[in-house]
Amino acid sequence: MTDAPKKVVLAYSGGLDTSIILKWLQTEYGCEVITFTADLGQGEELEPARQKAELLGIAPENIHIEDLREEFVRDFVFPMFRANALYEGLYLLGTSIARPLISKRLVELAHQHGADAVAHGATGKGNDQVRFELSAYALDPSIKVIAPWRLWDLTSRTKLIEFAEKNQIPIAKDKRGEAPFSVDANLLHTSSEGKALENPAEEAPDYVYQRTVNPEDAPDTPEYIEVTFEAGDAVAINGQKLSPATILTDLNEYGRKHGIGRLDFVENRFVGMKSRGIYETPGGTILLEAHRGIEQITLDSGAGHLKDCLMPRYAELIYNGFWFSPEREMLQAAIDKSQEHVTGTVRLKLYKGNVSTVGRWSDHSLYSEAHVTFEDDAGAYDQKDAAGFIKLNALRLKLVANRNAKFK
Amino acid sequence: MTDAPKKVVLAYSGGLDTSIILKWLQTEYGCEVITFTADLGQGEELEPARQKAELLGIAPENIHIEDLREEFVRDFVFPMFRANALYEGLYLLGTSIARPLISKRLVELAHQHGADAVAHGATGKGNDQVRFELSAYALDPSIKVIAPWRLWDLTSRTKLIEFAEKNQIPIAKDKRGEAPFSVDANLLHTSSEGKALENPAEEAPDYVYQRTVNPEDAPDTPEYIEVTFEAGDAVAINGQKLSPATILTDLNEYGRKHGIGRLDFVENRFVGMKSRGIYETPGGTILLEAHRGIEQITLDSGAGHLKDCLMPRYAELIYNGFWFSPEREMLQAAIDKSQEHVTGTVRLKLYKGNVSTVGRWSDHSLYSEAHVTFEDDAGAYDQKDAAGFIKLNALRLKLVANRNAKFK
Amino acid sequence: MTDAPKKVVLAYSGGLDTSIILKWLQTEYGCEVITFTADLGQGEELEPARQKAELLGIAPENIHIEDLREEFVRDFVFPMFRANALYEGLYLLGTSIARPLISKRLVELAHQHGADAVAHGATGKGNDQVRFELSAYALDPSIKVIAPWRLWDLTSRTKLIEFAEKNQIPIAKDKRGEAPFSVDANLLHTSSEGKALENPAEEAPDYVYQRTVNPEDAPDTPEYIEVTFEAGDAVAINGQKLSPATILTDLNEYGRKHGIGRLDFVENRFVGMKSRGIYETPGGTILLEAHRGIEQITLDSGAGHLKDCLMPRYAELIYNGFWFSPEREMLQAAIDKSQEHVTGTVRLKLYKGNVSTVGRWSDHSLYSEAHVTFEDDAGAYDQKDAAGFIKLNALRLKLVANRNAKFK
Amino acid sequence: MTDAPKKVVLAYSGGLDTSIILKWLQTEYGCEVITFTADLGQGEELEPARQKAELLGIAPENIHIEDLREEFVRDFVFPMFRANALYEGLYLLGTSIARPLISKRLVELAHQHGADAVAHGATGKGNDQVRFELSAYALDPSIKVIAPWRLWDLTSRTKLIEFAEKNQIPIAKDKRGEAPFSVDANLLHTSSEGKALENPAEEAPDYVYQRTVNPEDAPDTPEYIEVTFEAGDAVAINGQKLSPATILTDLNEYGRKHGIGRLDFVENRFVGMKSRGIYETPGGTILLEAHRGIEQITLDSGAGHLKDCLMPRYAELIYNGFWFSPEREMLQAAIDKSQEHVTGTVRLKLYKGNVSTVGRWSDHSLYSEAHVTFEDDAGAYDQKDAAGFIKLNALRLKLVANRNAKFK
Repeated sequence: MTDAPKKVVLAYSGGLDTSIILKWLQTEYGCEVITFTADLGQGEELEPARQKAELLGIAPENIHIEDLREEFVRDFVFPMFRANALYEGLYLLGTSIARPLISKRLVELAHQHGADAVAHGATGKGNDQVRFELSAYALDPSIKVIAPWRLWDLTSRTKLIEFAEKNQIPIAKDKRGEAPFSVDANLLHTSSEGKALENPAEEAPDYVYQRTVNPEDAPDTPEYIEVTFEAGDAVAINGQKLSPATILTDLNEYGRKHGIGRLDFVENRFVGMKSRGIYETPGGTILLEAHRGIEQITLDSGAGHLKDCLMPRYAELIYNGFWFSPEREMLQAAIDKSQEHVTGTVRLKLYKGNVSTVGRWSDHSLYSEAHVTFEDDAGAYDQKDAAGFIKLNALRLKLVANRNAKFK
Repeated sequence: MTDAPKKVVLAYSGGLDTSIILKWLQTEYGCEVITFTADLGQGEELEPARQKAELLGIAPENIHIEDLREEFVRDFVFPMFRANALYEGLYLLGTSIARPLISKRLVELAHQHGADAVAHGATGKGNDQVRFELSAYALDPSIKVIAPWRLWDLTSRTKLIEFAEKNQIPIAKDKRGEAPFSVDANLLHTSSEGKALENPAEEAPDYVYQRTVNPEDAPDTPEYIEVTFEAGDAVAINGQKLSPATILTDLNEYGRKHGIGRLDFVENRFVGMKSRGIYETPGGTILLEAHRGIEQITLDSGAGHLKDCLMPRYAELIYNGFWFSPEREMLQAAIDKSQEHVTGTVRLKLYKGNVSTVGRWSDHSLYSEAHVTFEDDAGAYDQKDAAGFIKLNALRLKLVANRNAKFK
Repeated sequence: MTDAPKKVVLAYSGGLDTSIILKWLQTEYGCEVITFTADLGQGEELEPARQKAELLGIAPENIHIEDLREEFVRDFVFPMFRANALYEGLYLLGTSIARPLISKRLVELAHQHGADAVAHGATGKGNDQVRFELSAYALDPSIKVIAPWRLWDLTSRTKLIEFAEKNQIPIAKDKRGEAPFSVDANLLHTSSEGKALENPAEEAPDYVYQRTVNPEDAPDTPEYIEVTFEAGDAVAINGQKLSPATILTDLNEYGRKHGIGRLDFVENRFVGMKSRGIYETPGGTILLEAHRGIEQITLDSGAGHLKDCLMPRYAELIYNGFWFSPEREMLQAAIDKSQEHVTGTVRLKLYKGNVSTVGRWSDHSLYSEAHVTFEDDAGAYDQKDAAGFIKLNALRLKLVANRNAKFK
Repeated sequence: MTDAPKKVVLAYSGGLDTSIILKWLQTEYGCEVITFTADLGQGEELEPARQKAELLGIAPENIHIEDLREEFVRDFVFPMFRANALYEGLYLLGTSIARPLISKRLVELAHQHGADAVAHGATGKGNDQVRFELSAYALDPSIKVIAPWRLWDLTSRTKLIEFAEKNQIPIAKDKRGEAPFSVDANLLHTSSEGKALENPAEEAPDYVYQRTVNPEDAPDTPEYIEVTFEAGDAVAINGQKLSPATILTDLNEYGRKHGIGRLDFVENRFVGMKSRGIYETPGGTILLEAHRGIEQITLDSGAGHLKDCLMPRYAELIYNGFWFSPEREMLQAAIDKSQEHVTGTVRLKLYKGNVSTVGRWSDHSLYSEAHVTFEDDAGAYDQKDAAGFIKLNALRLKLVANRNAKFK
């Protein structure tokens, strides 16, 4: 086959499925495989992935294991949170935002190794294939992307296990049967979907939740924290300066403890169908509330309302896999421009699934007690101005009313 | 004064402030005053307003007390909730949505009585003056609107009390001093703002909250309810068909009990300043979650994403007082069109401040387990289609990448 | 092949290409073919299509030739023009808007004949395949759509001619060679693209233009016409009431004569590539100008500005083939709502490629000379109101300026 | 009067009206007046303004006459044209875009002279007062803005002339009577409005047009020019590099000669009324066409469609006077980001009122003849990908159709 890849960089988790892909790439194409395993905060040991790869015959210099947590939060999560991005009103895009970074490193490693292809383990029904591939093509239009799940005939669990056994791929005991649902995790969130969760009428069983305690089991006493922002990004918790990934890690711990950030959601996939997911975004849920809290006093209404109007499109672009697109970059430029003075501190109350802003302050505040006060404002605001303001805003409505009255 | 009104319909609560306005209108203009007191679900007895008005010399036929709760929910609250309207990401517009209805009745009564003016008790710093007046002008462009707070010299509590005493207006004991904050209430929400709440850095004291128990004091056991929708509007709770106002009343009781719907918020007023409000929207918060839940399975993604894009503008129009405007009606037409199949039932879990969708089902569902399943889908979806879908979505990104590479 | 269609309704022009498709469907699938030929105002005789179809063995009762011009203009062109729809700022969507109607009739005929498939002659690189197919699937999700250009191996002119000869399909002399470019026409426009026009740097030769005289050859004297609208749709020219298709036909003649509506355009296809087209939309160009002219005096600014914001998305939906989609219908509901008073008459000057509104009047006019006059306005407008209007609009800008000054 | 300004910088044209304002400021407030006269390309000698100011007693060091043409085009006109900004579909914002620059210089001169106020000659009915004042307040929130037309009692031509005579202000003979209409001009456009033009039903007489020949009098032979862009801005005409103001000046001359850029328009003023204007924007009309032409081949569709969606709001902001606002700056950041590769050359045909792109080329082109060609594309594009693309785009429409069919 003339189109067969010669050297492939594979997004490799070390698990059974990507081990099968690894082997399948070798046997199907006779190609050299480079593995790439990233720590995005999914909370798993990565060294076993190295051993697995070696076991499958990958040369040590072709095994890449990287800690991308800081880059992930600094260059992907934080820019997205500047936009208060929510997909379809509720979803914090935890899976979507991780894919472009993985593709970026796959392509960079391909260039480094002189590979002509990258491969991923996403299926043909989901959004992740789109996100991986659009990102890869946007970064290297000549790269090949191999998506084995769309290509092979290993279309049942039985066939996969047979392939694994035939190829001496070790199979953990608990991987022989079907998992009751599918899980994706990174520093921002854990998502669970499929199989046991496929009926959107039925409440998800509690064992699905892995990152947060049940609110009912959370502490009976509220906890207060303070999050400090500079130019739209969180920089400190309770006054302590922290790196991006550390901040998110700490917020995750606060969220986990207080049962914050669970979402049972039916969403519209880019590929055209509805799907149901259980999302846990403990730190991200706190971060969104805090960011909104600090914007409340530091962001001008014209800027804020424009941001609100741009947000759904921005979120949709990320969800659909267009992080590396001209229009996402345009929106980012507008959003970032708005964040120059989004600096200050928010006080939050955490309690049994709730996160609530209860105070916010900033040297950059636009809140003017002098203007808003019910007390004497010493001339800061002339109430009579409101009469003219209303009159001119009403003028067109009056003209419409007069006109319409003629035709009733 | 040639512009002096001859007959005025006053939005009259029966409280001290609007009683002073009543008297002031009589003394300032020598005009006849008609009082209008509406039950919008604010939870106060209205008959005392009749007695107060009579005491101030208003003839019985000039006193109007009306129960508008059903009209309020059916024609204002429900249409707004079809849009999932949130102002600045968080505020459910509880005050904003009540003003147009009051203005509508003021204008209708003016026509009925041959009055040339209407009057309201909103101050010159807030949004309500704008909402009252834009609505009134849109419904009758020749009506006069009298806003005493922008006109008179009763600019301090002391002067108001003096005026009341001089004019034999009864003053309740607890109204002599300043209230610690200002309150507005209707069936949808209670808002509190001003004075004691003016520092947005300080947590609002618990006594501010009047409509909801503190989540910490809410029941330790979750409660589940089911809300049924027809064409975007709630029609039943736990299978029992109820009128619009009854549904909202019942949801308020559920929300109150479980501490749901509290919001500490700094918002941008239309008149240009930021202000801090404490909002309680117990039933509305449940209703929004439920409406989103049913839309998740019954609303097409194209329709849903368009709604998300239109929503911020729609919410801003309502907040700014443009309910009776051509553009709000255009948006409503689009939103209502989307709701034709938003019919079905949502199961919600209520627990200590949280309201969460845990299940939803509908004969109108677009959720297709056949398509989304991880199991064999019997050909409902051909995974190979995804390859072409991605390729064509990627095409322009590749062309951009190739072009940009030439100029690096 | 189990998926082979049994009975197919073919969009049949009577030309060589669709005759080849007709034969190919018969030979490839052994299926029955029903032909559908529509008069959309493309300006060709349709009876020859009947003879051709009969010659190719189609039974008379399976040949459908229909005049759809009134339906086309009334239900597709006019609703679109209510929106002032322009794709990418300039293109009047003449091809895009015809496709949904053709698909609608194909599907209706399929139901009438008990056919399981429809077929079209659009290629795999263009937008029309998408428009045909999305429309068909939206109207009948179980219909099969056959797109022979994406399926067969007749990939060169030579092979096509061979196939035609082998199958006794008559070949007009001028069809043996390649056409210098490809043409699509209907009552709204003629488009030309491909081959001789593929270099966007080179001016299109004059012989490409088929529907309009060269402006340089147009009359040296301007001509004035008056177009009357009711609720957003043109209903009369120079005072004479006319049917939708007749109005467009007459405007086409005015436009043709005066060289109006030529466009040399490079656009972005939905399938991801840029393409260059030469469009002639003589009557449509006049209609757009006239519609804007009447909206100028009859449409409120709030409604107009909202329409302007919605328009690009509306146009993109039509261009991409989503006429029969929930979101297009939502937008249409909003647009139609705005047009209730877009009633009145516009006077236009036509001259050598130009069409200019020079006057407009309406009983529904919102233009108020009383307000706008430089003369004494008798109190219609109080200039002092402007001071308050500006002050409150400036308030937030001042607060921003004060804040920003602290950090310079 | 404690609020009386002590030192005022006046936007001074040297004409009768601003001379009266100058005198009125002196007599009303006893304040010192600094005059500022800008050359924005309005085509008038400015030295007479110096003499007039001196005659009215202004000290030479308080008279400022500045050539702002390059700054005007480079920092205001060009950024606006990057957006293809059109207000209400048609108006190129020629007046709107000049006001912020004048306010900027007024405020800078106020700071330089220690003045506490600025003054302008715009009336209380128009948009210019808003633009001047919002800009001034945004740049210096503590500045006073004096708008004599909203303050004085010189409410008729007779009173103005009397005031001028009483104060020894020279009156040109042709200024004694009312001008038949009001004119504003700068390098981008000339606008005429009011009085003789107030009836929007009547064609504007030809003598209103001052910047362009009547298309009927334009040359009978087309002229071709080439405009070259770099990063969204015009940099050369016919291969000759020119400064921003020189380019616009030259394009104005081309436009004038060929009768290009006339517009008879009824627009919605920010202050709530409709008004009719006659605009001539000869060079700007050519520039818009050229900019669109070069974007057609250099701008990605995602970026272009986003720009189209943002444009109406951007144009409205400029029209309403919000140039110096956070949201205009956000939109500018997005627009500018899109222009990085908008580099190349457009060939335009100018003929009797028409300007048409007839060719465009660029090293930055995204147009790919390899992809779009009707000929064999050597595998650049696989037509079979289109099938999957359409299938997945259709999926949700099918699900909707199936659902809706159940309820018919």
